[in-house]
Amino acid sequence: MTESIVNAIRTIPELRAQLAARRAAGASVALVPTMGALHDGHCALIERAAAEHEIVVVSIFVNPPQFNDAADLANYPRNERRDIELAAGAGATFCFVPAVDEIYPSGAATSIHVSGRLTETLEGVERGASHFDGMATVVTALLNITAPQAAYFGAKDAQQALVVQRFVTDLHIATRIITVETVRDQEGLALSSRNARLSDEQREQALALSAALRLTAEMIAERRAQTPQQAIAAGLQHLTDCGLEPEYLSVTDAQTLAPASELRGELLIACAARLGEVRLIDNLTVNANREAATVQ
Amino acid sequence: MTESIVNAIRTIPELRAQLAARRAAGASVALVPTMGALHDGHCALIERAAAEHEIVVVSIFVNPPQFNDAADLANYPRNERRDIELAAGAGATFCFVPAVDEIYPSGAATSIHVSGRLTETLEGVERGASHFDGMATVVTALLNITAPQAAYFGAKDAQQALVVQRFVTDLHIATRIITVETVRDQEGLALSSRNARLSDEQREQALALSAALRLTAEMIAERRAQTPQQAIAAGLQHLTDCGLEPEYLSVTDAQTLAPASELRGELLIACAARLGEVRLIDNLTVNANREAATVQ
Repeated sequence: MTESIVNAIRTIPELRAQLAARRAAGASVALVPTMGALHDGHCALIERAAAEHEIVVVSIFVNPPQFNDAADLANYPRNERRDIELAAGAGATFCFVPAVDEIYPSGAATSIHVSGRLTETLEGVERGASHFDGMATVVTALLNITAPQAAYFGAKDAQQALVVQRFVTDLHIATRIITVETVRDQEGLALSSRNARLSDEQREQALALSAALRLTAEMIAERRAQTPQQAIAAGLQHLTDCGLEPEYLSVTDAQTLAPASELRGELLIACAARLGEVRLIDNLTVNANREAATVQ
Repeated sequence: MTESIVNAIRTIPELRAQLAARRAAGASVALVPTMGALHDGHCALIERAAAEHEIVVVSIFVNPPQFNDAADLANYPRNERRDIELAAGAGATFCFVPAVDEIYPSGAATSIHVSGRLTETLEGVERGASHFDGMATVVTALLNITAPQAAYFGAKDAQQALVVQRFVTDLHIATRIITVETVRDQEGLALSSRNARLSDEQREQALALSAALRLTAEMIAERRAQTPQQAIAAGLQHLTDCGLEPEYLSVTDAQTLAPASELRGELLIACAARLGEVRLIDNLTVNANREAATVQ
């Protein structure tokens, strides 16, 4: 049950007033936080949220503190009109499109930090600890502004979803965190706003990310690898064979991100690689316990 | 309009259920966060909260991360039965008395940091930056658990109140922060849970704190000091004359805590001093702009 969107909401008081009126009428509220540049991956989050809640707020906010690279921030694709149409089409009730100084008041000095492995490995290495601090701080602000029953995050950013679940648990934020499966194109490429920056040739090459992950997962699932290192080596080899510059390809515990010491339990296979100026990430999970291990 | 307390509430789900029922009936909720060892200063917060809200939650939680000194944590006075009676007498509806692992779930790794002068000066020097991180984190958790319309803090911890207002603003927490004037005994000593640890003789000496603040304030108000430094020197002299070991006596902007470069505007005069093993703080504000400057 959703309504059509007329306009973007730009201020916190207006969003709160709109939501208070709906809540008073008994509606439940979901939040889908985005940085815009919406694609079918975001639409899957919005559709799922709309299936489970009467009111869906899609926030569109490119958050400066979570970019460690000024060029990446400047080049991040923005197309507000198109984003709002896509969000509405997927079932959004409101698009919240605040300016930077609406989210960060004058003199803002607060940040949220999750310590330990969840933020220090994988994306935390290349993008810096401040990437996750910036993400955690803005997501907390958006949760406080919207006070949703549930918030939806993509499994493609698996580490981000784990960090969000961690601080939501620790700070007792009364919102359920829902992670939604990665959406891929027909050839297996995980949808990403950054894909728009790939040349046709790079787009072909980028297929190596999901292929390398599937290869690694299959080696684990079919017991062809005896150790995590063997499975990782095969995946990395595939990436470099295809001309990518891998940053990491890891096999870790899917909840703690501790490096897998053996091929047991729910494992996350994650990788990051560069194609020229574009940095892409992807991941799969595999349950190595089952009789016939399953890849997701 | 308050109700009598029967029992302490020890779990988050029970507190949330109780509050949800009252909210559904239209009640507004206030929070008074305390570390127990209640005195008339806390009771003044509770009474003010009860005058302005139907439901008053008093939390009693000695928060380990905000103690930099294990002995201070171990010696912090605890008397739950008495605290609950005092809170009920002052108008509390519920006392929330969680165990440490109710507030900090297994694997907790999240902290909130306010950067800059608000946390780096005065109490931030002696007690360390982690003191305010610990306070900010637990207050955020308590605000998220209780979701109050307003939360009440004592002006005696002036810097704490400024830090709370900063992160509540920055994180868009939908709670008004109310600061309530310091309660003093008949001789001017600011009430503090730590006063219980003073000997009779030390209690006499401790009067020098408020006396030194009044002296400093009067020198500003009556234009007897030409510079902040002159006023500060007089206050410090009084402390040492009375046998106290002053840690600091400062004259700063009352909002930013920037050291006052001239005697203008709303100024905070704050001091910390030791009497043997006990560390005490106190403060006054003075408006140096007015024709006849006023001390509060």
